Order: sequence, then C-alpha cells, then structure tokens
Amino acid sequence: MGIIGMGRIGNVHYQNLLTFSDVHVKTICDILVDNSWKEKYTRVPNLVKDYHHVLDDPMIDAVLICTPTDLHPQITIDAARAGKDIFCEKPVGFENKDILEAYKVVNETGVKFEVGFNRRFDKHFDKIVEHRDEGRIGEQQILKITSRDPEPPSLDYVEHSGGIFMDMTIHDFDMARFITGQEIDEVHVFGNVLIDDNIRKFKDIDTAVISLKFTNGMLGVIDNSRKAVYGYDQRIELFGSKGVARAENVLNSETIFVGKDGSLSDTPMYFFLQRYKDAYARELKSFFGAIRGKHPVACNFEDGIRAIRLAEAAKRSLLSGQAEKVAEVE
Amino acid sequence: MGIIGMGRIGNVHYQNLLTFSDVHVKTICDILVDNSWKEKYTRVPNLVKDYHHVLDDPMIDAVLICTPTDLHPQITIDAARAGKDIFCEKPVGFENKDILEAYKVVNETGVKFEVGFNRRFDKHFDKIVEHRDEGRIGEQQILKITSRDPEPPSLDYVEHSGGIFMDMTIHDFDMARFITGQEIDEVHVFGNVLIDDNIRKFKDIDTAVISLKFTNGMLGVIDNSRKAVYGYDQRIELFGSKGVARAENVLNSETIFVGKDGSLSDTPMYFFLQRYKDAYARELKSFFGAIRGKHPVACNFEDGIRAIRLAEAAKRSLLSGQAEKVAEVE
Amino acid sequence: MGIIGMGRIGNVHYQNLLTFSDVHVKTICDILVDNSWKEKYTRVPNLVKDYHHVLDDPMIDAVLICTPTDLHPQITIDAARAGKDIFCEKPVGFENKDILEAYKVVNETGVKFEVGFNRRFDKHFDKIVEHRDEGRIGEQQILKITSRDPEPPSLDYVEHSGGIFMDMTIHDFDMARFITGQEIDEVHVFGNVLIDDNIRKFKDIDTAVISLKFTNGMLGVIDNSRKAVYGYDQRIELFGSKGVARAENVLNSETIFVGKDGSLSDTPMYFFLQRYKDAYARELKSFFGAIRGKHPVACNFEDGIRAIRLAEAAKRSLLSGQAEKVAEVE
Amino acid sequence: MGIIGMGRIGNVHYQNLLTFSDVHVKTICDILVDNSWKEKYTRVPNLVKDYHHVLDDPMIDAVLICTPTDLHPQITIDAARAGKDIFCEKPVGFENKDILEAYKVVNETGVKFEVGFNRRFDKHFDKIVEHRDEGRIGEQQILKITSRDPEPPSLDYVEHSGGIFMDMTIHDFDMARFITGQEIDEVHVFGNVLIDDNIRKFKDIDTAVISLKFTNGMLGVIDNSRKAVYGYDQRIELFGSKGVARAENVLNSETIFVGKDGSLSDTPMYFFLQRYKDAYARELKSFFGAIRGKHPVACNFEDGIRAIRLAEAAKRSLLSGQAEKVAEVE
Repeated sequence: MGIIGMGRIGNVHYQNLLTFSDVHVKTICDILVDNSWKEKYTRVPNLVKDYHHVLDDPMIDAVLICTPTDLHPQITIDAARAGKDIFCEKPVGFENKDILEAYKVVNETGVKFEVGFNRRFDKHFDKIVEHRDEGRIGEQQILKITSRDPEPPSLDYVEHSGGIFMDMTIHDFDMARFITGQEIDEVHVFGNVLIDDNIRKFKDIDTAVISLKFTNGMLGVIDNSRKAVYGYDQRIELFGSKGVARAENVLNSETIFVGKDGSLSDTPMYFFLQRYKDAYARELKSFFGAIRGKHPVACNFEDGIRAIRLAEAAKRSLLSGQAEKVAEVE
Repeated sequence: MGIIGMGRIGNVHYQNLLTFSDVHVKTICDILVDNSWKEKYTRVPNLVKDYHHVLDDPMIDAVLICTPTDLHPQITIDAARAGKDIFCEKPVGFENKDILEAYKVVNETGVKFEVGFNRRFDKHFDKIVEHRDEGRIGEQQILKITSRDPEPPSLDYVEHSGGIFMDMTIHDFDMARFITGQEIDEVHVFGNVLIDDNIRKFKDIDTAVISLKFTNGMLGVIDNSRKAVYGYDQRIELFGSKGVARAENVLNSETIFVGKDGSLSDTPMYFFLQRYKDAYARELKSFFGAIRGKHPVACNFEDGIRAIRLAEAAKRSLLSGQAEKVAEVE
Repeated sequence: MGIIGMGRIGNVHYQNLLTFSDVHVKTICDILVDNSWKEKYTRVPNLVKDYHHVLDDPMIDAVLICTPTDLHPQITIDAARAGKDIFCEKPVGFENKDILEAYKVVNETGVKFEVGFNRRFDKHFDKIVEHRDEGRIGEQQILKITSRDPEPPSLDYVEHSGGIFMDMTIHDFDMARFITGQEIDEVHVFGNVLIDDNIRKFKDIDTAVISLKFTNGMLGVIDNSRKAVYGYDQRIELFGSKGVARAENVLNSETIFVGKDGSLSDTPMYFFLQRYKDAYARELKSFFGAIRGKHPVACNFEDGIRAIRLAEAAKRSLLSGQAEKVAEVE
Repeated sequence: MGIIGMGRIGNVHYQNLLTFSDVHVKTICDILVDNSWKEKYTRVPNLVKDYHHVLDDPMIDAVLICTPTDLHPQITIDAARAGKDIFCEKPVGFENKDILEAYKVVNETGVKFEVGFNRRFDKHFDKIVEHRDEGRIGEQQILKITSRDPEPPSLDYVEHSGGIFMDMTIHDFDMARFITGQEIDEVHVFGNVLIDDNIRKFKDIDTAVISLKFTNGMLGVIDNSRKAVYGYDQRIELFGSKGVARAENVLNSETIFVGKDGSLSDTPMYFFLQRYKDAYARELKSFFGAIRGKHPVACNFEDGIRAIRLAEAAKRSLLSGQAEKVAEVE
C-alpha cells in the first residue's frame, strides 16, 4: 500500500505499519520528498512527490491520506476512481461541496473508505461501549466528555485549522455519537478566549462548553480547553438508569508518592501521540481487517460528515448565542 | 433559641443543637405538636403550635425557620420585627414580592439572617475554595458540577417543590457562585423527563444539562438527575490556568474488594442526610458564631435571592429553548 | 455511670457520652480533680479523687477504666467485686499475675467486661469482616496490616509504655485476630531503631516487620513505624482464594488537585483521635448495648489477654531473633 | 545476533527484536526446529538445532539464552569463550558449581553479560527508584513487595522449577535489591501449601511471607501467592523518613462502572506477558545499548547470583523455621 502525506500523523501510521507482518508499504508520497529520505525510510521501495504515482501503481491496493485537510476530497476522489481502498485522516474536508462530491464518488466506486477518528480504538472508551452494550448502563440519560489539550497549537496552525470545533471538538462530536450510538439533534455553545488573546484574530476561541440534545431525548455536554497544564485530559462519562461508566485519564505511571502534602499520582499522558499510541495501531489493524472483508469499516464516510455537521452547528451556535439544529448529511 | 417547623430538616438541626454546649433550645414550634411530643423532646421546655409564642419570648435570641417554603417570608418578617436573628432554610420563598418584602424588613431591622445552603459547609467543597484562594487554580476557566439524587421525591412533593431548578438545582446554583466567587450572567438549559413520565403533569423535568456563562468570562455546566441508582452523586470540578481541583464522592467506606470481575469500591453515601451530616453541624456552628459577632454570616439574604434568580432564568431557558440572562436581586 | 481516669482517652469517652440520651455520667474520678474541674464538667454531678467513691455508689451501674495501665487490674478487681459492669482501656494490665487475678474475679462475679480495642468499631475494617463473612474472600490465605503512627510519642511516654509491641502493635495483634476470626500460633519479628536513637535507652524499637503464622495455616504480616510524615497509616488487606479486601486510609477530604506535577490527593487523617472518632462512639454504644443484654460484649477479657500474649511473643522473638510460639491465655 | 531457545520467552524477545531497526536476528536455535518453522520465522535466515552453529558464526555478536535453566551455565561458558555478548534469562543456573564456573569464564573473557530480570525495566517500579534517587523517600525504612501470580503453573513445571523461591520469588528478591539499592543480610520465611495440595509432592509451597533484614538496617517483607483470582498482583511500596512511594497494579483499562453495588474498576493485567510487555522491549533495548558501550549492563552476573543466594536462604529458612543469613556471591 501507499501513504500520501508524511507529516506527523503519516509517520505515526508508518511506524505502526512496520510491525504488521502482512502489510507492505510500497510507496511513500510527500511533496517534500528528496534524496535524504532514502536513509530514513530504508524499508520503503518508492519515495515520490506526486500522489498520482501511488494511484497508478496496480500493486497498491490501499492508500492512507494524511495530507492537509483541504486536499482530502480531491485525493479521495482520485483514489476512489483508481479503485484503491482509502483510509483518510479527519476531517474529510473543509468545503461542503467537495466533501459531498468525494462522498458520492466513494459510494459509486464502492471502494472501502475509513475516516481516522482514532479515539474509537482507545481501549478505555471501548470499555464504556462494552458496558453500554451489555446493558449495564440501562437507558442512556447523560453523556459527559472532557477534552482538554495540554497546550494550544501555534497561531499559524490555528489559522488553517478550521476553528476549534472543526479541529478539536470534531473528535468529541464523533465520540458523542460513537459512545452512545445515537444521533445529536441540537447543540448549544458557550465559548470564550481565556488562554491566548491572539486567537481572536482568527475569530476562534480556546475554551468552550457545548451542550447536546440527542434525538432519543438524552442530554450531553462537552467541555473543551486548549490548555490543561497537567497534560491531555480525556475523560468520558456515560450515565443511565442502571449506573454510570467513566473512563478516567491514563497516567504516565501507576506509582504514587505520599508525603506530608498528600498523595501525588503521576501526570496524565502528555498528548495524543502518547495517549492514543495503541489506538493508532488498532485503528490501522481494523482498517486492514475491513478491506480484507473481515468486518465493516469502523468509521465510514457518513460518520466523517456527521462530525462535520456537528462542528458546523456549534459554530453557528457560538455566533447566534442560541441552540442550533444539526443539519443532515446531505 | 427556638425552632419553627419540625419536619425532617428541623429534626436534623435539633439533633446537632443537642451537642452544642453553649446553645439552649427553649421552644419547638410545629402545627402538629401534641402531647406525645413531650416524650420525644424531653430536653425542650416549650412545645407550641403557634410561632408567635416563639417570637414573643424575650429569652429567645434566634430562630431556625424550617417550615414549608411558602411560609418563609412571613415568618422571616415577623421574626425580624421581633428582633430575632434568623436562620432560614432554602429557598427563602416562592413569591418574588414576598421575598423582597422580607429582604427589606431584614435589612431595616438589622437582624442577622442566614440562608441554609448547607453545601457551603462541606469540607470537600471547601477544599476546592482553599485551592482557589491559595492561587493553585490560577485564572478560573471552567466549573463543572454533577448533582444527582439517588431517587426522585414523591409526586406529591414534586407538586409543591417549585420545580427541579427551585428545589434541587438551587443548591448547585449557590455552589456555582460559592466555589468560584463569581456571578453568573447567562444560563442555557437542555432538560427532559427521562425517569418518570408522571412528572410531566407538573410541567417539571427530571434530567438537565445547564450551561453557565459567568460575568468574568469563565464557563460552567451543571448536570442534574433525579435518580442515580448508585447513590447521591455530588462532584465539583474547578479548572483553571494552573490546574484543576476535583471533589469526588464520599463513599460509605474506604474498603475495596478485588475479585475476578475487578476492583469494587463502596457506594457513595446514600443522600444528603448522610453526605452532609457534618456540614449541617458546621452550618449551625457558623450561624451561632455569626450572631455572636465572630464573623459575618456565611450565606446572606442576597445569596438566597441570587440563587432564586438563577433558578428563574433556568426555568425561562427551558421554556424558550434559548440562553437567558440572569436577573438582578431587585 | 462513672469514669475513672480523665486523661486524653477518658475525655474522648466523656464527649461521646454527652451525645447519648440514655446514659448518665454521674461521677468522674481522677487524682488531679480540683475545684476548677467544676467549670469544665458542668453536667457531671460528682467529681472525686478516689475511685472507691465511684464503686460505692449504688446508683452507678458501670465504670470506664481509663487510668494508667498498671492500675487496670486492681480497679477491675474492685469494680467487679462491687458488681459494676466494666469497660477497661487496653492493655488490661502489665503484670501477668495481676491480669490473671483480675480475669478470675471478673469471671467469678459475672460482671460484663469489655476491653477498649477501638479499631474493632472502625467501619472500614468492619467492611473487610463483612466481605469475609459473606464468603467473598473464600479461604483466607494472607493478612497484611500496615500500622504507622504520624509521630513518635515522647520519650517519657515510651519509658512507661511497655514497649512498642504492648503499646502500639497490640492493636494490630487484636485486629489480626478480629479480621480473620483466627488464632495466631507463631510470631517472627525483625525490628530496629530507625527514627530516634534515644529510644534505645529503653531497649525499645520504632520500626518492625512482624510475620504471623495462624493455627489454620494462613500467614500474615504487620509492619509498624512510629513515624509516617504523611499521617496515620492504617491499612489492612485480607487475601484469599476468591479475592482480596483492602481497607485504605481515610483522607482529610476527597478533593484532589491536578497540576503540572500530577494529581495530589489529601493527607490521611492525622492520628487516632481523628481517624477513629466514629469508632470510639460506636465502641461505647456497643458496650452499653452489651450491658443491657442486647448482644454479647464485642471484645472480652480473653481477647485482651490474647493480644498481650502476642505482644509477649513478639518481644521474645525480637530478643531471640527467631520465630516464637504464642502462649495460651493461662 | 542469535537466539538460543525459542520457548515462550524466546518468542517474546523475538517479537520485540522485529521492531528494532538496528538489530538483525540472523539465527534462531532450538532443539525442536523443523521445516515448519521456516513459515513462522520468515525474516530469520538460519534456523538450527545445535547452538554451536550460533556460536561459530563470526557475523553474530550477541546471543540471547532462553533455554531451560539447567543449560544456562554451559551455554554461557561456550558463548563467552566464543566472544559473544550474552543476555541470559533468569536464573543463571541451578547448580552453584556450574554458576560460579560460568561467572569465572564471563569475567575472564570480558564479554558483556546481562541477566533477564525484566521487572527492572517496568516504568512503574522505575518511578519508585526515581523518587528514591531524588531524595523524596528520605532514609529508607520499610520495603513491601506483593507478588502474586494469577494461577499456579502446571505440576510438571513445578517439578523442574527449582521451587517457588528460585522460580518466582527470585524476581522479588532482585526487585528488593534494585528498588532499595541495598543488600539483604537475613531472611525469614513462613510458608505453606494453601492452593493445591499436589505441590507437596515436590516439597514445594504456594504461599509465603518472607521477611527481610537489610545490611543498612532497614526492613522488608515479600508476600507471594501462586493464585490471585483477580489477576497478576505486582505492587511495591518503599517507605522512608520523608514519605512512601507505592507502585499499584496496572489495570486492563481505566474505565470504571458505578452501579448499585459500588464502583467497579477493571481487573489488573492478567500475567507477566501483559503487564511486562513494555518492560521486555525496554530490557532488550538496554542490553543492546550496553553492548554498544552506551551505558553499563543494567543487571549483571553478580546480580543474578545474589538473587539465587537469597532464594537459597529462603529455602533454608522454610526448612529450619528460623531466620537465615544470606551467603556471599562466592
């Protein structure tokens, strides 16, 4: 298979693929490829700059699209037309027209398509779903998601991020749907800039409380911050008529020190590369399982679009100050 | 001193007063008083039905008002005019006109007046305030309150409760102000009936997610449920630029059992009488400290009214489906 | 009833008795009684120096013996002959001859006699026994007790304490029997002076690891330290064929602060007066229940002697460096 | 490099080596090698039955010895004489004469030699050492190790295991030295058969409490069981004058379910392959770092022998019923 886009996340996937005995990375594609890359990627036969080389190669069955978001739809369309199965990083695109075009082509060509919502493969969150599926939660009533980054991205990144809802909360919106198995009807946002005033330049915010009303009547809330000094804060709580399941943070170690000031546990894992290390590996394993027909794709194109619809509704709510309905896929 | 109203909460206070060596309960007043009460309250000299007997007694310096809510304002007015210091259970009243009249009389007479928001005296929540005051939280950014009862009240109680916001969330509104030391500007509610359909008869709800926007720009959320099968769920989390303080539930014991299914900790304390047992005693101790001039009243009339204003805004938001501004005291 | 000996522990009991509506403290006896005591103990009719005044009073049914340990046997004998039910602080005495004489008299007179092993009334440890009794532990295999004081007693106290095993570990020995419901056959001690060298003057130690072999074949270990800077460390773990029950420390609050260094929980309660506050009250409640015939005495004279036999075996083991058999009661 | 012995642990190392970009497994040696192995080990050029083929290969710099224990000394001697650096699984041998002979040859030839005490590479235990090294523990006073397997090995395994102390406790003895950085002077054992009577046939036990006296005066205790129904129980606690560091069990997930019976956390990781997965990888990484001269070997031959001396002392103590001195290396 081939990888298109070798930034941070492309390399995460590449490292995981090295440990898979049944997957062969034939080509890596990145606009920055030069001769020095040969030393770094000794196990990869081809290093190219133009992704069409990947798509034209009949030996390549599947591609990972890890480029900047604005390129996702076009590469998806080209890859689908070339008959490749596709794993595409989130979000599936920025422009709605492009996204729906890519969605249409994927559906027409019938290639497998998976969106990279890595948190679906976190074993701790998975355990909540297990509790739910085994009936221990009972009727679902309240979902709570805490999602705070350890530090804000660079302002340069913020400028092209699509805003906090499209860049960061989109994961939480996907989790809200994944954890409950329910759709969200309405969204209300209180948001503010409390961390870095510079973010106002991009009409973005860094702190938010996002309330959710689900179509089945249950309620939810997501709270986001771009900066938690103690590390990546990723907790989910699903409350229902029979009890509550809570996924707590994963710590750097299970060792505590008790001294005269109290009992000090270790910090949460620093950020997504640490916390979701295993999830990224399980995600790819699942994708290859899906394209081999072992099970359906874990997170499909529609899931990708629905998360975007939620982000759009959140953006509207922030501007209107009122609750907003979530739009349909098309 | 005297106690007016000997229902459940009146008796809680009475039991605590027995352990105070420097406070003497001279008179108990309740419309249900009859001869059989003499056996139960052997240490109390007077048992009366009419609260004016309490107010006319020059030996009585202070009264606890523990009657149904609708009687609070009139008794407050009469007690203030009689020069008694007053401890009044929450809420301070239902009708705004009556409340403001009582507020005015209390201010004019200059008697001490404390509202019974018992959670302000919980040592676990107090510790959050200590962390905040000592600067460990840094700039406050997000407040989260989880407040779930173990079981819904009787429908009969619900009918006269003033609705979930006035009866239950009012405590959380007061805590939101107490924990942060900030005022709330705007409130948004998503609410529903997910536990018992009968509650719809009273146009009430049993499950709610209430978002808060504070005047200093920080955000917050309260989630309420009338039924948590695992017991009283009372957690607060205050997040800021330097860290987060979290008060977890208090368990029936610190003993865990680890077997083949995992590690089982004990249940949270069942309800407010258990969880806030010590808080009720500290509350009264504080009231008597205040009337002896040792420190200001911990929770004054204005605090009582502000909590009501928040409950009113929540009610409006539930009806309008939109965020609502919180009204001023007067 | 009457209290003989009004040092620290006598006062703890006195405070608890004030909250009992059905027990009347008629006389307090202490060699230090003078006129100033009247102001402090306004609710107690008689304040005397000679304990015979207590025993001669036909209105007094029961006595609490809270004097220094060396006086316990003689007062017990006199009280038993006077027909009083007796609650006696631990240990029941120092000299074996005196103890056995008191034991004989108590048995002959048939008065109720309870030893003050307060930890039997701690709800957290009780919960372990509940797990055991309900069969969740299965066959008992390993008992572990951690018992560390927050700070060493004064050297003056150490001199008259009877040594660490008789003063401190005696509680743990009683707990070892109480938690398991089993007798101990053999004891091995490794001990040392690691905190304060001055303690060597009294041939005492301040740190110990005490292994236990029970008559039913199960094993155990107690570790003791006279100084844990983080507060009173009182944990018990009972491991068996079906699982393990663990009583953890009780903290000053359930509030944690998570900052850049990790998650800081509160300190354990400082010492026995804080940690066992409720246990002391339950202990006396149980004693009065027993003398009213509601249930057997919770901790009888034989229990008091068996704990001493274990302390004696530990002392022998420390000297011999070898495992030592535990002697019979008589 | 080459691997000699491809049982369970040989395969664990092999899987880890696949992810190392700078180590090449040239030869695998096992007496069971046959043609079918070629399919399983496609990336390994040579599969042989006789370990001399490995030692004779000048392209091989280092070997992992993962054979049954009784073969360790002879292969070590041959490998050292062939100039190979050696990683040898624990224990380094059974017969003292053989072990010392191998020790001598390793010293004479100057090859690098590391013993496979994998727990030294567990990040949770490492954190205790970090607390100690940074002075947070203060003067070390008490070490406690809980080490319980989820289920007993087969009786066939027990027969050739060398007994519980040589097979299982040997890890704990090594940890006692590693965590404290101190040597142990004396050992006392209470042990019993409480899980499976069949183990008596081999004069072995399945449950033990092992007290330790260190040369620096500090004390310790290890408790062992061959069967904890809740999973692998691996906890260490180091107590000193400034505080205590505790490594708790690592759970299968950080998700808890709170229902009417209380709060259920997940089970501990099942056994050593799960719990020490990362430690095994770090162990090999460290070995290859050592043979490349980046740092000293993390666990040398002397460490391997000292752990055996402790196991021998424990065995003597079990037989004598008394405390036993620990012998010197030679």
